[in-house]
Formats: sequence, C-alpha cells, structure tokens
Amino acid sequence: MTEAVSTDSASLHPLDQIFHPRSIAIVGVPSGGGKGMGGGFLGSLLELKFQENHDLYPVNPKIDEIDGLRCYPSILDIEGHVDHVISMIPARFVPTLVDQCIEKGVRSIHFFTAGFSETGDEEMAKTEREFIQKLNDAGIRAIGPNCMGLYIPDERVAFMNGFPAESGEVFLLSQSGANAGDIVHGLSKRGVRFSKAVSFGNGADVKAHHLLDYAASDPQTKVVVGYMEGVQEGRKFFEALKRCAAVKPTIILKGGIHAAGARAANSHTGSLAGSIRIFEAACRQAGAMRAQTMDDLQDLVVTLTTEARRVKGTGVVLVSGGGGYAVLSSDAIANAGLDVPQMPQETIDELREFIPVAGTSVNNPIDTNVSGVELQRKTLEIVARAEPADVVFTNAGSTRPDAKEFDPNHDSPPADQIAHARTSAEHSATVIAEIQRETGTPFVAIERGRSYSVAAGASVDAFAHTAQQNGVAVYATVPRAARALGLLLEWRTRREGLQELF
Amino acid sequence: MTEAVSTDSASLHPLDQIFHPRSIAIVGVPSGGGKGMGGGFLGSLLELKFQENHDLYPVNPKIDEIDGLRCYPSILDIEGHVDHVISMIPARFVPTLVDQCIEKGVRSIHFFTAGFSETGDEEMAKTEREFIQKLNDAGIRAIGPNCMGLYIPDERVAFMNGFPAESGEVFLLSQSGANAGDIVHGLSKRGVRFSKAVSFGNGADVKAHHLLDYAASDPQTKVVVGYMEGVQEGRKFFEALKRCAAVKPTIILKGGIHAAGARAANSHTGSLAGSIRIFEAACRQAGAMRAQTMDDLQDLVVTLTTEARRVKGTGVVLVSGGGGYAVLSSDAIANAGLDVPQMPQETIDELREFIPVAGTSVNNPIDTNVSGVELQRKTLEIVARAEPADVVFTNAGSTRPDAKEFDPNHDSPPADQIAHARTSAEHSATVIAEIQRETGTPFVAIERGRSYSVAAGASVDAFAHTAQQNGVAVYATVPRAARALGLLLEWRTRREGLQELF
Repeated sequence: MTEAVSTDSASLHPLDQIFHPRSIAIVGVPSGGGKGMGGGFLGSLLELKFQENHDLYPVNPKIDEIDGLRCYPSILDIEGHVDHVISMIPARFVPTLVDQCIEKGVRSIHFFTAGFSETGDEEMAKTEREFIQKLNDAGIRAIGPNCMGLYIPDERVAFMNGFPAESGEVFLLSQSGANAGDIVHGLSKRGVRFSKAVSFGNGADVKAHHLLDYAASDPQTKVVVGYMEGVQEGRKFFEALKRCAAVKPTIILKGGIHAAGARAANSHTGSLAGSIRIFEAACRQAGAMRAQTMDDLQDLVVTLTTEARRVKGTGVVLVSGGGGYAVLSSDAIANAGLDVPQMPQETIDELREFIPVAGTSVNNPIDTNVSGVELQRKTLEIVARAEPADVVFTNAGSTRPDAKEFDPNHDSPPADQIAHARTSAEHSATVIAEIQRETGTPFVAIERGRSYSVAAGASVDAFAHTAQQNGVAVYATVPRAARALGLLLEWRTRREGLQELF
Repeated sequence: MTEAVSTDSASLHPLDQIFHPRSIAIVGVPSGGGKGMGGGFLGSLLELKFQENHDLYPVNPKIDEIDGLRCYPSILDIEGHVDHVISMIPARFVPTLVDQCIEKGVRSIHFFTAGFSETGDEEMAKTEREFIQKLNDAGIRAIGPNCMGLYIPDERVAFMNGFPAESGEVFLLSQSGANAGDIVHGLSKRGVRFSKAVSFGNGADVKAHHLLDYAASDPQTKVVVGYMEGVQEGRKFFEALKRCAAVKPTIILKGGIHAAGARAANSHTGSLAGSIRIFEAACRQAGAMRAQTMDDLQDLVVTLTTEARRVKGTGVVLVSGGGGYAVLSSDAIANAGLDVPQMPQETIDELREFIPVAGTSVNNPIDTNVSGVELQRKTLEIVARAEPADVVFTNAGSTRPDAKEFDPNHDSPPADQIAHARTSAEHSATVIAEIQRETGTPFVAIERGRSYSVAAGASVDAFAHTAQQNGVAVYATVPRAARALGLLLEWRTRREGLQELF
C-alpha cells in the first residue's frame, strides 16, 4: 500500500493522486478493441498516445493481445505497478476486482461499470457502499460507478475519441459522461482547452465537493465548470462551491429542474434533484454563476477565458452588414439587458469620411458595406475607441453560400478551397485580436453564416479556434453573445465586495 | 401601356403581374459584373439561368458587353419588351429612369436604390412619393425603394447567390433584404423551398398588406412568413393578416421591439416600430403566429411544412444516447410546456426484450445503447406506437468527432468519406420518414453533433435535407424543437373556432 501515496510532496491536494497515473489497466476491455462511447477507453488512450510515455495494460482473460498490446488475464498477472484501473466488467464481477485492486496496491479505480445505486435497487446500493468502503480503507479513491471517468490531457488520458492532447485552464466536473463529452467536444471545437475533466456519475466516493476543492487549489486551473444532477452532502457541496468561487470563476449547470428532468436524473445517476430555487440561491450566495442550458455553460466558459470577461459595461457597438440583421440584433442585445448606445458626433464624422450615406448607418448599429481589409479594420478601430463602446460585436469571417451547396448530391469543395477559407479566416481573427489589444476594448465575433457551406463552416471553425486562442470570444449568434455578457455583468455586480477574479 | 396587363386571366390577383417577368433590365449594373450583396443581381439571375428562357438586359452606358450579354446605354435602347426593371443607379438619377420606364411600358420596377424616405430627409421622402405616384398612375407597380426585390424560383429570378432553383410552398415577405437572404439561405439549407419571396424595404407602393393578400390567394403558397419592422396603414395590414391567416398558417417576426432596435429600424427602412403589445395582440386576434427571433421563424416554418404540424399533443418520447443529455432535454421539453410521459408497462416490456438494464433507461427518455440499424428502427417503431407518444424526438445522424478535427491545420477529409457520410445520413432520414408514415406519429430529428467535424456537418446537412423533403422536421437542438412545437400547440388551441388549416 505504500505505492498508493507515492507523490513526492506533502503539500499536494489529497485528490492529486488520481490525476497523475503513470500506468493504467483497462479491465474487461472488449475483445474487438472497442470503438464508440463505452467501448472506447482503449481507443481514446491510444489516440492520445498514452502508451508512449506510460504503461497501458488491457485485461481480458479471453485474448492475448489487442491493438498491439499484451493483454492480461487479470490485474494480478501484470508484472509492473498499476496506478489506475478502469473497470468495464459487469457489476457482478466488481467485488472480486476490488479485492484484486487492493492486493495489487492501485491508487485509484474508475467504474465505468453501471448497475449499482442508480438502479434504485437496495441490494445493489448496499454492494456499492460496501466495496467503496473497502477501497477507501485501503487508501484507494474510486470514481463513479456509472461514469466515463478521467480526461487529463497532460497525462494523455481521455475517455472519448476527439479529445485534444493539449491542456488548458478549464476544469470540468460532471455527473454525466455524455454531457462531459458534449462539453469537451463542443468547447474544444471552439478553441478552449482543459486542465482536467472528471465524469463522476453516482459519486459514491469522489463527489462534487472534493472536485471543487481540488479545482480551487489546482494551479493549472483558472476557470471551473460543473454539470450536476443532484447534490450529495449539501452543506459540504455549498462550502466547497463557496471556497472555489471565491478564488476562480465557477459555473454550474443543474439538470433535473423539471419533474421530467428530475425523473430522468434519478434513473440516470440515482440523484434526487432537489429544489432549483434553493440551488439557485446557493449558487448566488456562493458567488458562482448558474448556467441554465448547455449553450449557456459553453458560452460562459468562452466569455471567462477571453478578454470578453473584462467588458467594461453594457455598451455594445454592433458592426455588421444588413439593416434587418442590425434591427434584430439590437432587439436581442436590449433583451439581454445591454445597450446599443448612439455614437458620438466625432465618431460619426470619422466614419463618414469613407462610408457613403446611402444604404448604410454609422450611428450604431454600424451597417456599412465597406469592403477590403483596410477599411474594415479602420471601421473597427474607430468604433472601439469611441467612448460608449464597452464591447464591439463583429462577424467571424462569414461567407455567403454557393447555389451548389443546396444540391444534396454536390461534390465537396476542393481541399485547397477549404484550406484557403481557413487561412483567410485565421488571418482575420488575428487582425481582430490585434485591434482588441491596441484599443483595450473587448471584441466579440459572431458565427454568421456557419451553416451556409462546407467552406463557410471550415472558415468559421478556423476563425473561432484562432480567435479563442488569441483572447477573442466567438459565439454562434448575437442573442447568445448578448446573453453571455449579460450574465457576466450581472455576476460581476453581484460579487461586489468579494475578491476580484480578474 | 397595354403590355402592362398582358396576363391572360381576369381572375388573377392584381399583384400577379410582378411575379411573372418574361424579361428583366438591370439598370446601373456594375461594370465588373458584380459579386456579393447589392452588386449581385446579375450574378444571381445568371446563376439560376434566367437568361435561358427569358430576356435579360444589362443597362450601363459605359460598357458594351457584360458576362456575355449585350449591355445597353438605357432601357429605351432595348429593342424587345421589358417586363421588370431592377434599379441600381444612384437616387438622383431615379426620376429620369421612372420617365423612361413609363415610356417603355414596363410592368414593374424594383428599386434597390436607397436614399429616399428612409433617410428621414423630407425632400427625399417627397421625391419618393412623387415618382411612386407617377408610376402607379401609369399602372406600374414599384417594389422598394431600399430593398432586394424578388425571388421567384419558377421564373429563375433571385436576388442573392445561393437561392435554390426549385420552388416550394413557402411565401416570404420581408422589409429587410438581409433578413430575407438569411431566411431563404437558412431554410433552403434545411430543405425548405419557396413559392416566392419579396424584400420590399420602404414599401412606398407594394406594402405588406398587398403581399399578404397575394399570398392568401396564391395556389402555390401553403405557408406564409413575414419579417416586419413597421406597419404601414395599420388597419389594412391587420385586415390582410386576418384574411391570410384564416386560410394559411401565417408567421410574423417583428423587428424593432426595443428602443435600440426601433432606432435601427427607423434608420433602416424609415419604419416607426409602434408598440409590440399592440402588434402581438393584433397577431393573436388575426390567428397568426408571432415568432420572437429569427430561430423561431425558421423553426416554425419547418414545423408547418412537415408532419410535425400534426403533433397530437404534448407527449414527447425522447430517444437518444447519454443520460445527462436525456436529463437536460427533459428539462427543456418541460420548459416549453410539453411533457415526457412515462411509457406503459407493455412498451417497457417490449423494449426490455432487446435492451439490457445496466446503463440504459426505457421509461422515457429512452436512453439506450443499442447499435445497428434494425434494433434502432425497432426501438423507434415500438415507442411511436405507445399510447402517450404524440411525437418522437430522435437524432439526425450524428457522428462523434475525430481528434484531428481539433488541429486547425488538418486536411479536409477525403471527398469519398464526406460522400459516404451523406449517403448514410440520407438513408437514415428515409427510414425515419417510413416509420413516421407507418405509425402515424410525427417524428422530430435533432442535429446533435453537427459542428463536430466536416463530415458530421455534411452528414447532418444531408439528413436535414432528405428529412424535410420527406416530411420529417429537423431542428438544431432539443430546446428549439420543443419551443417550436410548444408555439404550434398554443397557436392551434388559440385558433379553435377558426378554420382548420390542416
């Protein structure tokens, strides 16, 4: 058991042992090698090349080799040390595996295996309590059961395909594996990167409050985001949320707020949903932000990881094409509690030097038809320096579609066309990041036209990625951008008196 | 002037003359041939091959030929008849063009030209009134000024690139050209097709009430959708809306509802926005549906042009993967006023015959991990036949991403991979349409995972197109689908006592 506390610093958080596995055994690895959610742990680890700098041990008594790796009959047959175990075996074999893990001296075990307390069956719940107690007595931490487990980019650990190998500053805790997957995939696509993510399911041992405490103390983590279905040990959760939100922006999405959702949550992770009013009040009191939807959650993470988090106030300058688009956008901005302030006369005069009167507007929304990179850049610089501009909304390199896109049988565009669209969008994102830096006014880019064509989609993707990495927030639509900034401003106001987070 | 009434049936609606141009002159066509919004009328007409069965006359005294077409110094130099004129010349030349149009005996003129009443300048407003009066006295109808004009697929007339050549059953009227473009592009991409669309800007002659009357009487039109900024001649508008909504589902989106939006609307189309409360009440009283956002508008059109319009009640069965996704979806469905009813025991028993207990739920939301087309089909058929199922939500052929998609420099996938994703998604949409037909329960598909990869996007696009054309509604997210169905049910209840529309 000495191996279980092999970390070399006494100052480390007690949960740190689960985030640095040097070796992993996958027990019950499917003989096919496994693809897709649930079958994909081996595939996800291989995809991130975990095996190149760590030891990876598939365990399945029916096969000798899988994907070029030696396969073991049981973890007791593995010669080397095993830090972390992923259990994919049926529930009835778990007690035996637990004994083997204790004998082997592993540090942590993740139960993908479902069929315990979440079934509502008292016998299975009792089994769960018993083996968790046994593991804890042996100093072994357990994640789950009924969850997807760990994503640790720096250790090349992932639980689904398509998780980036680079790490970042966002820590994710989630009771749901599918939602954790949607969050990592969705935000990664937008250029956000993660320090660690944990899908913890039933939370029989490692619970939300442990993870919030860890995230608060983890130097790699700057922003914390959580998806919860039910709260276990309410007071501990609330205290941990308060401690975490006091030092890092913390966003919580709560599922199961309506009766139907609560019923689904109960059969999903065995959670009792509780009152959303109490939950909302607890979040507010703790200084955390509550996301109401998955879109909210992802948009708030983007807001908090870009310069958008420093937005000075409610004054939005909207620069875009199309009068009707400007009208609907203004409505959406006002609806989110922000303003579209009129421009000062000197700004109007400066813009009118190169923007003709007919068919345009320069008094915010700025609806111009200027073309060419230089005039567009000049427009953005002038409005960003205008006194009422707290934030500038512009487009994320949109493209109008080609007619052939509407032919469902059309060929995909040539690779060089897509590559060109990408390069050009990346350049455009860099320019906006430069103007943001020079003027000190945050910019927000809107994914107008993403769905118009394959090339437009690729262009918007490339723009979003480059923009995010350079501190410019990108949102799908004006209403979503305005809502995220409105929630941010409301949260910042509410936190007055608490520690400044940025 | 006899040419102006050359239609051969006295029973045609008076506005019908603008929808059947045999010949078009584009006056002030840019010498470059023109690309992009505003410069693109020639390009849009050529894209739809208008010139193959009609006469197309570019007019610009500075050039002799453009894009292979003879270019004329003025419309008076054109030998043949001109039905319709598109004016792209500066405002100060418009009075001369108007005189020439009267002399030439055209039927209709569309003023893309801006700089009249919408500027707020009384002199320009007077000029507009005067030339409109002159045109009307000569029996010529005017569209605009300050707008994009006509989209008539059956006549191969379009005002932007990327408008489909096939026609459909949706009539669009819009004060904004950009929003008309977004609506046509957005809905076309989703597989919806249009009978006609009119961007009418300032509405100096042809106004919303004329277009609503036309749409009500147009046999090609089954659903009517409008984007409005201000209402001209309120009583006439309301009466026309009532007549139209009495015979066809009619959706109205109103821009300029907040102060900032109203100011933008005023500078855009010179519209005075008026009270949104009065507008909302007028829509309700007329039996129309009010969309609150552009997403609403597009989602309602999809709802009304598919079997989703026949949804029997509030009972949603959700079939998808991932417990957390099921929880958030259930919340969103409840939030929209719909239910996620529990399944009857016999449905549960039928499903349990092939769906294992661990990690799944069959008591709605149905969270299964069954794979293979046959078992998925069986699942959908069983739940669609369950008594509480008024509508079934399922996935629009999603794909999990590949890791390389997160490398911004990665190559685009090979064309055959995209083609394969498309074919497979189209097949999957066809299967769902079949089950919908066999069981009589409407299906709704959700674009889960669209943004994961280029191939996923292509797959979802192909699914959506095939589904829509086969009467299956597809929405971006569960919250949007639930909201659209909630609005539909509310509207149908409200219309009780009025004529059944389907």
